[in-house]
Amino acid sequence: MSSDLRTLFSEALSGNLRAIGRLLTALENPYEVPPEVFDEIMARAGRAHVIGVTGIPGAGKSTIISRLIREYRRQGLRVAVIAIDPSSPLSGGALLGDRLRMQEDSKDSGTFIRSVSTRGLKGGLSLAALAMVEAFDALGYDKVIVETVGVGQAEVDVMSAVHTVVVVTMPGVGDEIQALKAGVMEIGDIYVLNKSDLPDAQKAYEYLSFALDKGELGVQDSQWRPRLVRTSAVMGQGMSDLVNAIEEHRDYLLKDSKFTAKLASRRITLVRLMAERLLAKGVEEAMSRLEGRIAENALKSKGLLGIVRDLAKEACSEALSP
Amino acid sequence: MSSDLRTLFSEALSGNLRAIGRLLTALENPYEVPPEVFDEIMARAGRAHVIGVTGIPGAGKSTIISRLIREYRRQGLRVAVIAIDPSSPLSGGALLGDRLRMQEDSKDSGTFIRSVSTRGLKGGLSLAALAMVEAFDALGYDKVIVETVGVGQAEVDVMSAVHTVVVVTMPGVGDEIQALKAGVMEIGDIYVLNKSDLPDAQKAYEYLSFALDKGELGVQDSQWRPRLVRTSAVMGQGMSDLVNAIEEHRDYLLKDSKFTAKLASRRITLVRLMAERLLAKGVEEAMSRLEGRIAENALKSKGLLGIVRDLAKEACSEALSP
Repeated sequence: MSSDLRTLFSEALSGNLRAIGRLLTALENPYEVPPEVFDEIMARAGRAHVIGVTGIPGAGKSTIISRLIREYRRQGLRVAVIAIDPSSPLSGGALLGDRLRMQEDSKDSGTFIRSVSTRGLKGGLSLAALAMVEAFDALGYDKVIVETVGVGQAEVDVMSAVHTVVVVTMPGVGDEIQALKAGVMEIGDIYVLNKSDLPDAQKAYEYLSFALDKGELGVQDSQWRPRLVRTSAVMGQGMSDLVNAIEEHRDYLLKDSKFTAKLASRRITLVRLMAERLLAKGVEEAMSRLEGRIAENALKSKGLLGIVRDLAKEACSEALSP
Repeated sequence: MSSDLRTLFSEALSGNLRAIGRLLTALENPYEVPPEVFDEIMARAGRAHVIGVTGIPGAGKSTIISRLIREYRRQGLRVAVIAIDPSSPLSGGALLGDRLRMQEDSKDSGTFIRSVSTRGLKGGLSLAALAMVEAFDALGYDKVIVETVGVGQAEVDVMSAVHTVVVVTMPGVGDEIQALKAGVMEIGDIYVLNKSDLPDAQKAYEYLSFALDKGELGVQDSQWRPRLVRTSAVMGQGMSDLVNAIEEHRDYLLKDSKFTAKLASRRITLVRLMAERLLAKGVEEAMSRLEGRIAENALKSKGLLGIVRDLAKEACSEALSP
């Protein structure tokens, strides 16, 4: 296993697409990756610019990412995309249309697109995504784009670990604006009003400008004034403005040593998630042994907290056994 | 603390709304609730019919829930609503309009509406929601309605722990249907096509019927054929059909002892989440002690897996210390 993954990593480093795919699969359970391989990945990583793209469904995130890929490829940069798809525990098949649209670009070996779904991951979505960020970074991708739908704890964990957060929205009525103000939507470094050729675009633009002026958006970094960019990604309009805004943010981070600080905080998050996952895995394993007793007590309604403690104890010895 | 919560629970049992509110707040961290209070809650719970309402944003879930509340109150039943709002880690303020709309109904003491957001919960959203289900159940609420937006692991955990899952959708274009097929949307016992007065309603209805016939929806229970109900909740149309469908499903569960089986599985989930949370809390506490070392190693890119193990070990002794 260890030597297999070592070989895989070397092959991946030389650009073998299949090896990259298999390495990413192994990293879905990063705590099972041999320490020396893990360390080597970490040692090689640290240079990529990690860009999070989030926003309400239907706003056109995938189209924007397709366009970004083209722009970056034109500049000779290597681009990886991690598309986080939290929606399907059963079919694993959401947003397939979007994925296929993006895959068109991936015949090109300087582009790699990977979808991560909850299927088989059981809560480890953000962990898998962050481990894949490290891998793409180690493999020399210049831009690593992480796409999320922007709801839920996993997405928040991931977005707080990227360098640059791009929030994509579109013209529409009150509901979209409410959604925009909610949660992960507030943490943009760059806001994109996509589909800006639609009738209501001017109104939406003014609303966003107003919210930005009032300091309601882009709240996570008081030293950076969030940019607002209008695009029509389907028609390819406004993309160079977006690319420029992203570069401006990167320059800002680099100038102020914030680029490295974000790398450190990304890895602190990774370590925390790995420890949590290691213990949650212990809980799962202990569950199978204790499930009968738990079910019995659950219906008797007695001593559930004691069971919780027993379960946690078993989980610990499970997780920490060599 | 222990005797305080005991008093609080007695007051809540006698219908004191403020006591109920404070009890629910205490249950946001259920592992901190004294075992005897916890046991008493569990012992009194077990009779409520727990209904999950999920679906895409904007489909009208809150309006439907408002209407359900009125119907149930008319029947003399007590109704509790737990609205899970995963979206705002920063402001905690999402979907406020919806919440306010529902609160109108809550002057009535047989109705209690509680919103749970990630704010201050750090990943314990589903745990808090399930503990609140037990509390409302123990307090004699006949119907406990849990509303989620239907994306993310937390929502999946919660929806798999309710008796009856109602999936709300509305007429629209391809994107909505893709969303509908994704994940939690597949696990409905009842599908509601709301806003069925809109132009595209017939097409959407036919699509849903077709998907049901093909067995693509309602996949979690092969013995129950999912119901499809058309409503226009704003106008109050179709609500009795929905109420009937929900009762049919309850009768089905009761007849087959599935009602109790679902209770047991809800509590198994609760126990698992509590054990996970106990350990995750240990990780958090250990983090603050180890963070400097982690940051250092994170940038040196050396020995991260060792750090993960150390962190997990510290977390265990933290979590299991008496």
